[in-house]
Amino acid sequence: MGKPYVRLDKDDVAVLLVDHQTGLLSLVRDIDPDKFKNNVLALADIAKYFNLPTILTTSFETGPNGPLVPELKELFPDAPYIARPGQINAWDNEDFVKAVKATGKKQLLVAGVVTEVCVSFPVLSALAEDFDVFVVTDASGTFNEMTRNAAWSRMEQAGAQLMSWFGVAAELHRDWRNDVEGLGTLFSNHIPDYRNLINSHTLFTSGK
Amino acid sequence: MGKPYVRLDKDDVAVLLVDHQTGLLSLVRDIDPDKFKNNVLALADIAKYFNLPTILTTSFETGPNGPLVPELKELFPDAPYIARPGQINAWDNEDFVKAVKATGKKQLLVAGVVTEVCVSFPVLSALAEDFDVFVVTDASGTFNEMTRNAAWSRMEQAGAQLMSWFGVAAELHRDWRNDVEGLGTLFSNHIPDYRNLINSHTLFTSGK
Amino acid sequence: MGKPYVRLDKDDVAVLLVDHQTGLLSLVRDIDPDKFKNNVLALADIAKYFNLPTILTTSFETGPNGPLVPELKELFPDAPYIARPGQINAWDNEDFVKAVKATGKKQLLVAGVVTEVCVSFPVLSALAEDFDVFVVTDASGTFNEMTRNAAWSRMEQAGAQLMSWFGVAAELHRDWRNDVEGLGTLFSNHIPDYRNLINSHTLFTSGK
Amino acid sequence: MGKPYVRLDKDDVAVLLVDHQTGLLSLVRDIDPDKFKNNVLALADIAKYFNLPTILTTSFETGPNGPLVPELKELFPDAPYIARPGQINAWDNEDFVKAVKATGKKQLLVAGVVTEVCVSFPVLSALAEDFDVFVVTDASGTFNEMTRNAAWSRMEQAGAQLMSWFGVAAELHRDWRNDVEGLGTLFSNHIPDYRNLINSHTLFTSGK
Amino acid sequence: MGKPYVRLDKDDVAVLLVDHQTGLLSLVRDIDPDKFKNNVLALADIAKYFNLPTILTTSFETGPNGPLVPELKELFPDAPYIARPGQINAWDNEDFVKAVKATGKKQLLVAGVVTEVCVSFPVLSALAEDFDVFVVTDASGTFNEMTRNAAWSRMEQAGAQLMSWFGVAAELHRDWRNDVEGLGTLFSNHIPDYRNLINSHTLFTSGK
Amino acid sequence: MGKPYVRLDKDDVAVLLVDHQTGLLSLVRDIDPDKFKNNVLALADIAKYFNLPTILTTSFETGPNGPLVPELKELFPDAPYIARPGQINAWDNEDFVKAVKATGKKQLLVAGVVTEVCVSFPVLSALAEDFDVFVVTDASGTFNEMTRNAAWSRMEQAGAQLMSWFGVAAELHRDWRNDVEGLGTLFSNHIPDYRNLINSHTLFTSGK
Amino acid sequence: MGKPYVRLDKDDVAVLLVDHQTGLLSLVRDIDPDKFKNNVLALADIAKYFNLPTILTTSFETGPNGPLVPELKELFPDAPYIARPGQINAWDNEDFVKAVKATGKKQLLVAGVVTEVCVSFPVLSALAEDFDVFVVTDASGTFNEMTRNAAWSRMEQAGAQLMSWFGVAAELHRDWRNDVEGLGTLFSNHIPDYRNLINSHTLFTSGK
Amino acid sequence: MGKPYVRLDKDDVAVLLVDHQTGLLSLVRDIDPDKFKNNVLALADIAKYFNLPTILTTSFETGPNGPLVPELKELFPDAPYIARPGQINAWDNEDFVKAVKATGKKQLLVAGVVTEVCVSFPVLSALAEDFDVFVVTDASGTFNEMTRNAAWSRMEQAGAQLMSWFGVAAELHRDWRNDVEGLGTLFSNHIPDYRNLINSHTLFTSGK
Repeated sequence: MGKPYVRLDKDDVAVLLVDHQTGLLSLVRDIDPDKFKNNVLALADIAKYFNLPTILTTSFETGPNGPLVPELKELFPDAPYIARPGQINAWDNEDFVKAVKATGKKQLLVAGVVTEVCVSFPVLSALAEDFDVFVVTDASGTFNEMTRNAAWSRMEQAGAQLMSWFGVAAELHRDWRNDVEGLGTLFSNHIPDYRNLINSHTLFTSGK
Repeated sequence: MGKPYVRLDKDDVAVLLVDHQTGLLSLVRDIDPDKFKNNVLALADIAKYFNLPTILTTSFETGPNGPLVPELKELFPDAPYIARPGQINAWDNEDFVKAVKATGKKQLLVAGVVTEVCVSFPVLSALAEDFDVFVVTDASGTFNEMTRNAAWSRMEQAGAQLMSWFGVAAELHRDWRNDVEGLGTLFSNHIPDYRNLINSHTLFTSGK
Repeated sequence: MGKPYVRLDKDDVAVLLVDHQTGLLSLVRDIDPDKFKNNVLALADIAKYFNLPTILTTSFETGPNGPLVPELKELFPDAPYIARPGQINAWDNEDFVKAVKATGKKQLLVAGVVTEVCVSFPVLSALAEDFDVFVVTDASGTFNEMTRNAAWSRMEQAGAQLMSWFGVAAELHRDWRNDVEGLGTLFSNHIPDYRNLINSHTLFTSGK
Repeated sequence: MGKPYVRLDKDDVAVLLVDHQTGLLSLVRDIDPDKFKNNVLALADIAKYFNLPTILTTSFETGPNGPLVPELKELFPDAPYIARPGQINAWDNEDFVKAVKATGKKQLLVAGVVTEVCVSFPVLSALAEDFDVFVVTDASGTFNEMTRNAAWSRMEQAGAQLMSWFGVAAELHRDWRNDVEGLGTLFSNHIPDYRNLINSHTLFTSGK
Repeated sequence: MGKPYVRLDKDDVAVLLVDHQTGLLSLVRDIDPDKFKNNVLALADIAKYFNLPTILTTSFETGPNGPLVPELKELFPDAPYIARPGQINAWDNEDFVKAVKATGKKQLLVAGVVTEVCVSFPVLSALAEDFDVFVVTDASGTFNEMTRNAAWSRMEQAGAQLMSWFGVAAELHRDWRNDVEGLGTLFSNHIPDYRNLINSHTLFTSGK
Repeated sequence: MGKPYVRLDKDDVAVLLVDHQTGLLSLVRDIDPDKFKNNVLALADIAKYFNLPTILTTSFETGPNGPLVPELKELFPDAPYIARPGQINAWDNEDFVKAVKATGKKQLLVAGVVTEVCVSFPVLSALAEDFDVFVVTDASGTFNEMTRNAAWSRMEQAGAQLMSWFGVAAELHRDWRNDVEGLGTLFSNHIPDYRNLINSHTLFTSGK
Repeated sequence: MGKPYVRLDKDDVAVLLVDHQTGLLSLVRDIDPDKFKNNVLALADIAKYFNLPTILTTSFETGPNGPLVPELKELFPDAPYIARPGQINAWDNEDFVKAVKATGKKQLLVAGVVTEVCVSFPVLSALAEDFDVFVVTDASGTFNEMTRNAAWSRMEQAGAQLMSWFGVAAELHRDWRNDVEGLGTLFSNHIPDYRNLINSHTLFTSGK
Repeated sequence: MGKPYVRLDKDDVAVLLVDHQTGLLSLVRDIDPDKFKNNVLALADIAKYFNLPTILTTSFETGPNGPLVPELKELFPDAPYIARPGQINAWDNEDFVKAVKATGKKQLLVAGVVTEVCVSFPVLSALAEDFDVFVVTDASGTFNEMTRNAAWSRMEQAGAQLMSWFGVAAELHRDWRNDVEGLGTLFSNHIPDYRNLINSHTLFTSGK
């Protein structure tokens, strides 16, 4: 009855990080800032860990929106970086779409600020071109839960799949036998409860 | 799989403001009054800024529902103004439907009080006549989150798209190169965080 | 794209009140008890006001579930009253279904306690027999928001329309010219904010 | 219009309990720990009470994820127990799928930790193989409401039905005449309010 | 170390109901309107039940503040009724203070709208004149929890005791042997959960 | 400046459990029922574990308030059990006060339902007779957070110390060397997170 | 027992606005930005309306903290304006203290960002010099409710009185006969519910 | 009237970090784990930055409570580290008290897990020995807001001052002229909003 299961495939995924800029971040109030910072950096670490082609884009960095958060710049020094001259929907920018298509990937992971604009618009546009689109909901932020829920509804109705960064990582990895240490470290760095489990475990099993 | 992307087009949009009356507003408790007032006026400013045909309608202004909020009257002195003699669903009022159709627009932005009646009913009726309908969720208010969620579900299932006023403005504008100052001012007037960004930016870049 | 607008029609509606029993009510914790009592009685008053055929049913009144709340018994002394001998889904009880079908109505308003059982089960069964089913969400209660949301999702996916008692009243009434005083009194009795508006209005316009 | 009513049938149901491990449980923060423990054990008791084939699976018990909670081990000493060597999606493990298929059941009740991974992934996979899948939402837990809502959306869109353990029990039982005492005891053990009703009732009707 | 226990004594208590006016009530948003209406009427019923001298006062009834809620007028037709010509603090009105002192009572129960003004000001003034002052917190309302908490802090520091209407009733009654039926009815009318208990109890013990 | 530290001393403590009756429990809505049941039983287990003299009291067990919860009866078969004939404040009952004083203890741990009556009143009375009184806040319940906060304020101002059952246990135990297993088991039975820690720890350190 | 009632006296009050700067405002997350902006401007309007000596101070305007919000600068062009060269506690700045003392007022209204630093520190210092200090809580903001509550506790214990801007206005005005229109307009501009009441009232009583 | 202002003085402060252990941290549910981790490390960074003597203590590291979080161990390699053999109240451990007194400081900053035990007990004990005690509330965690509020009340009544880590840093620093870069970096590392302000500011003022 429902939609078929389109499953994330690390060989067919590109990541679009849209407008995580220092000014715009002050608008995000549906997630606590400590958690939001952590979520965005976790998604960035996932992109690095799985070697996913990643595209950065911003809107008016020299205006009040402010520069891209420096951590993202540093993590992806060689990523396509599209400073849009004015298009609000990144998908309206030819260079951006070209960069997306140049990856040759069919599955898009999208996150950004604010959810109902910088995320929703390219999500809806990409769906219209038959991409499989996955919204990384907790690495995307907006004014409040009400506007978030409206944005989620619109994207969901259009066929987007809503995920969390943790779900993304797990679906991409598929099997811990591919590598325990790398992903374990990523989780430890971004989930304090998990880090605590690891630290307890290490002590207890070290026989000390 | 999902619905195709029907995108707001400023040349094909009309705005319907339904029953924002001083009495009915006291029923709105799913949004804080300071924020709700701001959201409604922001939507009105958007209608003015993009020159969107706007239709006002009220129900029993001389009864307990009270008059239309004066700010809306003043902003749209020449807009069609349908004081309905009794129809609860504005779409049951011929003059209202005529006024909507007279705009020649296919896309309708609807906001009002209360969400599950004054918004939902004309939304469902307009969808039934194949309009593309966009609910401006945060410029619409009701008794509490429970009745709001039920109303959203009903409209969503019927094919309405849920948006926020900020999303509406951004989707209508499309490109900042069309005009920075006007929309920037609108955002500054209705988003305190954005106003702060602008004020900081102005100081910092003025070299003082 | 969406579902067609099935609109409540007072000549084609029956009301099903399922298991509003004094014991079961102590399980309801997704709505405050003062508000829930008010919502249930408001729906009952609507059924009376619009003369809607109403069917009462209970489960094990002499056991811990307790008796039907006395107010409902008193309001509908002649309504079909099915004390189910054991069926959890009221629709599994032949007498209940017979009573529903005997009304000759195609549209069903359903409310009850608890939402994911006493409401959901007959809702799903009635939808399967092609009734148009409307859940009166705020006159239905359950353990917490989580179980409520799950129940809403299941009913929504199956084709039920989610409403509030206020939306129901408004959609049934359609036009205030049918009667102002009766419905006005009903609203005044069940919406304190509306009662205040009326009382202020009466004083102010009486010229005193 | 909607999905047909697929109703739980105790002769056609299997229960999948995925990764309720002592370490992973510390990640669950969308439900209070007292309630979550109660919900999981209630679901387990349901599986026992209705004699439903039940399958246990875990991921890395000797690592930080920790062992399966002992209560589940004790309740289902003879259940298939698949300690997955690395697959994150239990459905990627052949033994697990074999165990599921060996039950010969078409309806699957799934619960686990965390919702967007250990529950969602096998749910989506099972739906893709045409099982009827029911998520026991309140016996599944995750980081917070945001990631939960995203996970629910994804499963719902794919055709899963969202339920609570109480709804599951009621839909499986169908008629209290099948047995009052057994299910009554189960409810009394897991719903304090219901236990109170029973205790009051017993006293009052004992004539003391 | 702490304050001595000043206990409500039904022979030494007067009730002050300050500015429960139909307009001002629309400002109350720290309590749900259904519950607030119930709380205020419960306190009024307590005053009647215990025959406590009660004083009503209002501010500008013919202005936007609106008239006293009619239920209070009807319950206390012979109570001193001070329509203050302008004083915001009721204690600044000589007639009001005279009326209070004319009761000869030392203990004052105060409730009103809004908490930080109409309640706090006379509370602080009465404390300054060595009355024992008890704030009926849940029959008093204000803009939001933040302003309420600030108001409570100020009154508490000045020596007021914070109570609920239920606590007031219980402390005044002292012993159920004084009368079961009257107070039981009052509780049944204002506490739905209690009404349910009574209704279940009645059925169960009637032997039917 | 502040109050001197009166520290719980297991040789000088008595426990007063006031009106934890099956009917009254349905009024408790400031704590989730699963958690509240757990908290009350945890406090009872503490009283047993430390061998604290414990006094049970109820109000009208054969009326709607219902019987004492059976678990408490069973845990304290020999405890003084005062079924009050009508006094609302347990301290107004001579037998109760006698029982308290017969313990010879100066420190009283009090918990009950509802907080602002059954707990507050004896707490205030006991303070007035110079007992050191400790409110076990989370084993006491009431209508909502507002009435709870008012009750806490009143008791706090009168000199009561507010604690949780976990704090009580820890302050009574003082040193884990007195006994690890007994208190560890108590914590494991009432704190799911702690039980998980123990289960993980046991596995990890068993070398398996 | 309690603190004596120190009542605001418009002839003895000065207002201290501390660090309402465009950058620091992005840290405020215990109040919604729409409401916070409104509260701060309401307090400013009160200072103007009652002609209260007002002192502005900022910290590092040219750094990330950003400039004072322009509205405050414009409202108080001639007010003492102390741009502190480094002191975090404004009271450590001699010019600031001099300006405060130059007003000759004994009562200080303090608001600022963030509550536990820019408000608390000068509040505690001023109390130490025997000023009567009133915190305008809702015109002060901070990171979250937890840090706010801690800050309130510290100030309250030191003798500060916690108020809201509405309480301040009412206590200063004392009697509506002093002026209805001015204060009514101020309330109408800053309390949407009150504005609605006025607009309804005007219509209804105009006889139209 | 109130308590005199005891102000933090960096030359007279010691920091006590009590039981921040990897197992116990899983009990903390009144603060989100991302934020709590950040708060604890911020406090640790403050201790380093101001060179405050810091004392670490733990309870049963090799048991389920788990080891001290490694970050704290690494930050304070030479700090007194008291692994308590059993005392629950750290102040009952002679070595701990000796270490505290050896610092020669009169002001104690205390944080730990859980608030009502590991923080409250030594706080109350230290107050009893006339230390000035400051609770760093947001670097302390516990089961839920209810047990936290009770713990805060008890400490507050005993004379403790409640603070946040940000307030602590600001009160210790006193004047930005002492050092901008160091403290600015600390804030940037622990307050994402502040980091954003700095990054925007740097870009804007660099003239690029």
